[in-house]
Amino acid sequence: MSDRIRHAGLREKRMSAEQAAALIHPGMTVAMSGFTGAGYPKAVPQALAARIDEAHARGEAFRINVMTGASTAPELDGALARAHGIELRLPYQSDPNLRERINAGELNYIDMHLSHVAQYTWFGYFGAVDVAVVEVTAIDEAGHLVPSSSVGNNKTWLEQADKVILEVNHWQPDALDGMHDVYYGTALPPNRKPIPLVHPDDRIGEPYLRCDPDKVIAVVETSAPDRNSPFTPPDAASKQIATHLLDFLAHEVRRGRLTPQLLPLQSGVGNITNAVLAGLGEAGYRDLTAFTEVIQDGMLDLLKRGVLRMASATSFSLSPEGIDEFLANVDFYRDRIVLRTQEMSNHPELVRRLGCIAMNGMIEVDLYGNVNSTHVAGTKIMNGIGGSGDFARNAYLSVFMSPSTAKNGAISSIVPMASHVDHTEHDVMVIVTEQGLADLRGLAPRQRAQRIIDQCAHPDFRPMLQDYFDRACRESFGKHTPHLLGEALSWHQRFVETGSMRM
Amino acid sequence: MSDRIRHAGLREKRMSAEQAAALIHPGMTVAMSGFTGAGYPKAVPQALAARIDEAHARGEAFRINVMTGASTAPELDGALARAHGIELRLPYQSDPNLRERINAGELNYIDMHLSHVAQYTWFGYFGAVDVAVVEVTAIDEAGHLVPSSSVGNNKTWLEQADKVILEVNHWQPDALDGMHDVYYGTALPPNRKPIPLVHPDDRIGEPYLRCDPDKVIAVVETSAPDRNSPFTPPDAASKQIATHLLDFLAHEVRRGRLTPQLLPLQSGVGNITNAVLAGLGEAGYRDLTAFTEVIQDGMLDLLKRGVLRMASATSFSLSPEGIDEFLANVDFYRDRIVLRTQEMSNHPELVRRLGCIAMNGMIEVDLYGNVNSTHVAGTKIMNGIGGSGDFARNAYLSVFMSPSTAKNGAISSIVPMASHVDHTEHDVMVIVTEQGLADLRGLAPRQRAQRIIDQCAHPDFRPMLQDYFDRACRESFGKHTPHLLGEALSWHQRFVETGSMRM
Repeated sequence: MSDRIRHAGLREKRMSAEQAAALIHPGMTVAMSGFTGAGYPKAVPQALAARIDEAHARGEAFRINVMTGASTAPELDGALARAHGIELRLPYQSDPNLRERINAGELNYIDMHLSHVAQYTWFGYFGAVDVAVVEVTAIDEAGHLVPSSSVGNNKTWLEQADKVILEVNHWQPDALDGMHDVYYGTALPPNRKPIPLVHPDDRIGEPYLRCDPDKVIAVVETSAPDRNSPFTPPDAASKQIATHLLDFLAHEVRRGRLTPQLLPLQSGVGNITNAVLAGLGEAGYRDLTAFTEVIQDGMLDLLKRGVLRMASATSFSLSPEGIDEFLANVDFYRDRIVLRTQEMSNHPELVRRLGCIAMNGMIEVDLYGNVNSTHVAGTKIMNGIGGSGDFARNAYLSVFMSPSTAKNGAISSIVPMASHVDHTEHDVMVIVTEQGLADLRGLAPRQRAQRIIDQCAHPDFRPMLQDYFDRACRESFGKHTPHLLGEALSWHQRFVETGSMRM
Repeated sequence: MSDRIRHAGLREKRMSAEQAAALIHPGMTVAMSGFTGAGYPKAVPQALAARIDEAHARGEAFRINVMTGASTAPELDGALARAHGIELRLPYQSDPNLRERINAGELNYIDMHLSHVAQYTWFGYFGAVDVAVVEVTAIDEAGHLVPSSSVGNNKTWLEQADKVILEVNHWQPDALDGMHDVYYGTALPPNRKPIPLVHPDDRIGEPYLRCDPDKVIAVVETSAPDRNSPFTPPDAASKQIATHLLDFLAHEVRRGRLTPQLLPLQSGVGNITNAVLAGLGEAGYRDLTAFTEVIQDGMLDLLKRGVLRMASATSFSLSPEGIDEFLANVDFYRDRIVLRTQEMSNHPELVRRLGCIAMNGMIEVDLYGNVNSTHVAGTKIMNGIGGSGDFARNAYLSVFMSPSTAKNGAISSIVPMASHVDHTEHDVMVIVTEQGLADLRGLAPRQRAQRIIDQCAHPDFRPMLQDYFDRACRESFGKHTPHLLGEALSWHQRFVETGSMRM
């Protein structure tokens, strides 16, 4: 299996996952690859979880701090969470087992902007990184690393960690070679220079990751697939949301605020986004671009049909069918896809310069346009803010989307006051539900409230929201942002107590 | 008085403020100069307010939309507010009369990031700008405008407005000529290029504002001072806050996370900032730089003593004594001060590249580090977010400061849940009160809560906060961010009902 390890010195460092996991000790800070279920190490974390289980069975404490690019998979977050092996986790997760532990208060989780992770590490804000565990596709003769299906924070982990464990995954296609763009022009203030990217397809770096071979303490060979969630077709609500958003984009083109090529698209992951992407194809758009975090199945289809001219991201998140399609036409896609480090894919400087159209999901929005992306009832974390803040804050257009209700209608996504705020009223331009679209640009708080109630609220909750707003306009302490403080969170409290926000 | 108007065609357009105000009609969007009580038009807004009063006395409706750089003065916001002449106001204000009208719900106020105003206008998000009213120091032979004591959004107003009214203020020192740097390299996406500024003292533009003389419909001569709030010496709490922050900066230098020259300083306006600036001088720092919004008296002193090597801003806000000092040594200061447009002084690209140390005041912070900069009890706007978001979100260090109590101890600045969020948990690194400093970097929510309670809360409120937090950790629906939703805003509700947060 070793034709993927072409550097002689590193070939000598091959060992089993168990041997490599034995080099990770309690209390260490371990930085791992992985972004949206792609490119995470498959073997060492599981071996480490087994090692932690054994230590715990002996009555010994064993927990580590885990940093990644973003979400991983059951083999990493799931395994370590089930072993009670995580003391601190950042910056994003979506694993059911890990989520449960976090919300039980068993471990510390720092939910942060994905563009901030690399630089906060460089700045020393997280202390030393003891070990990096990074999946790669191959190692060339000179020791350069061909990145895997995500780049994420790997450049930073390889530079900052004292020691490095590499997983060479034979399942990752050789054809990934040449798709990546790793920018080595970063620096710490006061020595930073402008980032020389002016188009979403500009290549400003190198195709390979650098790594000092002397730091590598283990090379583990694997052959295991990425998480590869199957593609689920959009449901009716997602299609309605997409229709409203597409109507709006067409309106903006007619008004001359967007050209027919729009501007670089950023989109979160999931059903609604897939419906929007599909709708762009149906609406006749051509030569669009994407400057985003994740390449999903829908984007391959748009690339193939010329709807998308190119896509820049930091990760692939494809279904098994998507991977087959990618491999069958890899030369075509290699010309049209760039995978960057996440400090570049999400960089505020680039998002603002390019003028991205940021389209992200949300948990809830309040009457005044404050968006909660992370917390159910203000206290339970769902996944994390991810890149939504990096993009929304600096976008040409910031759009947040959700069905107007959740839990079979028990929860309204439009609430009097957001129970947690990830995107403030200052950063939110457009809200879309299956009911309609509220364009909040140029509106003051009370105007926004009426617009959101009229356009986005579910009819079952609309009278309750209107009643709250009307009474708040009469009785609020201040009338710039009217609220009844004793009632503002009562919908969430009712949900916690009864399982429903309904009266 | 006309030696300040050296362009023949514009000299012919001289008229009285009353004549100029007569060119502004009901329903117009009027973009005015002014930033932090500096460089705002002194005569036309007052004449306009009189015209509005007369219209109202005749029973005629007369309201306009008013956009500025930031806060102005009684002659502008105060006069128009008292005349009930404002329909919409953005992006920032600090006038008592205007604030009262906003909080009575009489007009619409959009509180937004100051770096966003220019580009949202270019994007067309606010519709057409009918008239710009801009104060300048002088007009040269070619029609170039020598900016006044602030630049703010004036480049944008002069470009975007259909018609322009200029106020040439003879009170503004001729010596301002040459201090400004107006960057004309901006563009709309997808044609944006990197902004070529890599040091806070780089000059990347022109010293003058361009304006098509054909758009100028009136030139009004004035001779009136800026608001010039007198300098008030820092009080005891401000000095204690400054001491904590200076100890922290010294600690960061010792740890190697900052050099002895620190990084470019951004500071809000007010007593606490003045105390911090004074403390920097006493602590022996030399050759510091400022990349900020406003030059205050304290900065002149630091420049004179070499503590500051230079300062970049968009506005002067000096006391009468500060102006005397400036004029007495104008050549010295001209070499060390650059005044930029506010889309550059506050630009996220530049703030992140330079790695600013952002120091801003706040109204309250909650246990988890969410900061409210704008709303008393979640409903009454105080001033606005100003540039605090532009800087905090992209800073190397983001610091928020406040005395731990307000209203003679009736209000705690540390609350269970912020009643409004302007800076989310993802963007806040350091909290300082006179009690101490909480470094939140690398801390998860529950860790932040205990740190803030221990370090920053007033002893009178500390047991109440600890009690809330302890019970929330036991009883909260989710324990990632523990809250008791029925109680989370009860402190604010109690304040609204009784005038105090105390039990």
